[in-house]
Amino acid sequence: MRMYDIIKKKRDGNPLSTEEIYAVIEGYTKGEIPDYQISALCMAIYFRGMTDEETTALTLAVRDSGDRLDLSNIKGLRVDKHSTGGVGDKTSLVIAPIVAALGLTVAKMSGRGLGHTGGTIDKLEAIKGFRTDLDSEEFERVVNETGIAIVGQSATLAPADKLLYALRDVTATVDSMPLIASSIMGKKLAADDDCIVLDVKTGSGAFMKAVEDSRELARLMVEIGKRAGKRMCALITDMDRPLGCAVGNSLEVIEAIETLKGKGPRDLTELCIALAAHMLTLAEKGSYEECEQMVHRVIDSGEALDAFARMVKAQGGDPAYIYDPSLFSTAQYQKEILSPVDGYISLMNTEQCGVASLLLGAGRNTKEDEIDLEAGIRLLAKTGDRVKKGDVIAFLYTNRQATLEAAEKTLLESITFGDTAPEPRPLIFDIIA
Amino acid sequence: MRMYDIIKKKRDGNPLSTEEIYAVIEGYTKGEIPDYQISALCMAIYFRGMTDEETTALTLAVRDSGDRLDLSNIKGLRVDKHSTGGVGDKTSLVIAPIVAALGLTVAKMSGRGLGHTGGTIDKLEAIKGFRTDLDSEEFERVVNETGIAIVGQSATLAPADKLLYALRDVTATVDSMPLIASSIMGKKLAADDDCIVLDVKTGSGAFMKAVEDSRELARLMVEIGKRAGKRMCALITDMDRPLGCAVGNSLEVIEAIETLKGKGPRDLTELCIALAAHMLTLAEKGSYEECEQMVHRVIDSGEALDAFARMVKAQGGDPAYIYDPSLFSTAQYQKEILSPVDGYISLMNTEQCGVASLLLGAGRNTKEDEIDLEAGIRLLAKTGDRVKKGDVIAFLYTNRQATLEAAEKTLLESITFGDTAPEPRPLIFDIIA
Repeated sequence: MRMYDIIKKKRDGNPLSTEEIYAVIEGYTKGEIPDYQISALCMAIYFRGMTDEETTALTLAVRDSGDRLDLSNIKGLRVDKHSTGGVGDKTSLVIAPIVAALGLTVAKMSGRGLGHTGGTIDKLEAIKGFRTDLDSEEFERVVNETGIAIVGQSATLAPADKLLYALRDVTATVDSMPLIASSIMGKKLAADDDCIVLDVKTGSGAFMKAVEDSRELARLMVEIGKRAGKRMCALITDMDRPLGCAVGNSLEVIEAIETLKGKGPRDLTELCIALAAHMLTLAEKGSYEECEQMVHRVIDSGEALDAFARMVKAQGGDPAYIYDPSLFSTAQYQKEILSPVDGYISLMNTEQCGVASLLLGAGRNTKEDEIDLEAGIRLLAKTGDRVKKGDVIAFLYTNRQATLEAAEKTLLESITFGDTAPEPRPLIFDIIA
Repeated sequence: MRMYDIIKKKRDGNPLSTEEIYAVIEGYTKGEIPDYQISALCMAIYFRGMTDEETTALTLAVRDSGDRLDLSNIKGLRVDKHSTGGVGDKTSLVIAPIVAALGLTVAKMSGRGLGHTGGTIDKLEAIKGFRTDLDSEEFERVVNETGIAIVGQSATLAPADKLLYALRDVTATVDSMPLIASSIMGKKLAADDDCIVLDVKTGSGAFMKAVEDSRELARLMVEIGKRAGKRMCALITDMDRPLGCAVGNSLEVIEAIETLKGKGPRDLTELCIALAAHMLTLAEKGSYEECEQMVHRVIDSGEALDAFARMVKAQGGDPAYIYDPSLFSTAQYQKEILSPVDGYISLMNTEQCGVASLLLGAGRNTKEDEIDLEAGIRLLAKTGDRVKKGDVIAFLYTNRQATLEAAEKTLLESITFGDTAPEPRPLIFDIIA
């Protein structure tokens, strides 16, 4: 099997066999196939696409490129939710305790990654003492005791994905549906959960800007997961405005706590309930409507918040933070952002809102950047809201005073004001099962 | 100018600017742009193509990637002929002396390369004492004294082409019209001749199998050359059967000598006359018909053969070989190939005929291979000829006895016999000016 022939086959529009795809990924992971052949193949895949069968084979080859988690000592039905990422997305922090409180097991490995804010792991580190670097024995113990643990992703999990992504990132081959789907699902399947709910974002703050692309990505990932023997569903959800009001690490943890208490922003609450109810449905806890009722119950009773506090304690964090968010330290510098006009917020360039939070220090530009866990934005108004000139529409938080001006400018530029209310946009566009 | 943006621009189907194309080639030649970005770009070009303007810019960037020849001390109008390569193509050895005898200047740099036989340089080395490694002063002196010199191509000439070709060769990006055209023309233009006649081969022994592809390549190269200020024309010529009867280095030199004496095979003679007459026409020596008459005259008078002998002598070779080809040494082993049937040769897979000669030792598989200058094939029958069972249809020559059997098998398999004569096929399909 010569790499040249594999590139040519794909270039000429012919599907690759499972053996060929495994040979490519194994050879690349071992360093036996050079970058320049892989980048040519990725570009050929960009133009020619892949069948569902090929994409599944690629996903499984990525999954098998490193260690598989051995979760055989972990009890219960393991569920997970994966989001394609967006601005203000703190749903994992809300959903995991909810479903754990209802008897499901969440043994979650999560990334740090680059972005406008940190990943779930970074956010949790805003809680004093919280450890995300549990070894596998501690991880098992915490999951078995509390039904939930969230740790950083091991470097030996699906290493081919890391190599491939770094190469695609510099060769303009990121935007390819089969490459995106196999990257996400390759890592997900390496964690070997039983049920997976995907949250595929769509809109100006999402990787996929168009609903149709999000739908196709969701369909493809659900198909791959099912072919790999998983129970799957996907929600296509709005990312044309930030999710909730908080953007930034400790700010988002606080908002997640409020949501677990039933006092969160409406859009975030609605999405968390839907995602959690779909996880419970996949786990056969009842009909979707019954599962939705269960979710409401554990929020109202405080059991969901207790589950969060138990996990925090088990992972070395101070559970007092969960019951009293005023314990979270606050950034040194704050600034009110005022509406420059009377009217409606008719559009938010959500990616640019994210950039404003990045400027404040909430995210990473490069892997080496230090995150300012206290930095970020609290929005008091979002798309569709009516504002008066001089109203406070947002607060900025940072420990780097010098960044305030650029962040304010970026945030204001991301908002379009208009005279009339914009067309309402659904929060959940579609459900793919 | 980021390489990422350039790849993305081409991937998305947008033309690159001249500045961008120069930045790519300069950066790659200096080792500042990695192979994996260039291979991704080449694959994007494979799918998206290039405009004539882009292809010209790429050609000029390749031309300018190394030293340009300084031929300012060479007198006269410099002409050259370039063939896209085929089996039995020894036209350079015939044409250069003809046009030199008619007052044009041929200062030719030629390659060795890989292939079924050696390049022009290898062939000339079959003449005892012939030196192809003249330094630039010797080169100038020989050209000015005799009107003609043929030397090996300098490694510093268009180095980007060597780098690009090696990369394309292992990434399935060779078969791209703009990449092929810019590779050929980049090297050609670095030699800075005034008039260039291109011989674009078509058929089973050519790089381009289909006449339409050959025509498009010819059109593109003529266009590039004109944009670079050269006088250009191109002939589309047949390579669906070997050219002439001899395939192999010393065998081809002998056949070239016979052709210069007016006793060569009909197809080779006809093609050499046409190519030489087109070179003379471009050099404004007269109308095409007048030029054709001049060519016949210098063949009949022996002046063309004398010009060849003068060049051989000036480059250190023994001119006696030219007047008495029986001086060429012969291979140790010979084998007659007999027709297995009564009938017609209806088809020859010409590339496979070439492989038979390669097996005998006449060519190179890798750059390191030693060529057996005496090895090769003499064909006594070609496509369209009537044969009887047991007729000798070819002789094989080699110094490696062990290869005879495989070469015979390969040659016989390359020939299709039939009951009726095949449709005649033109030698010259088209002329593009």
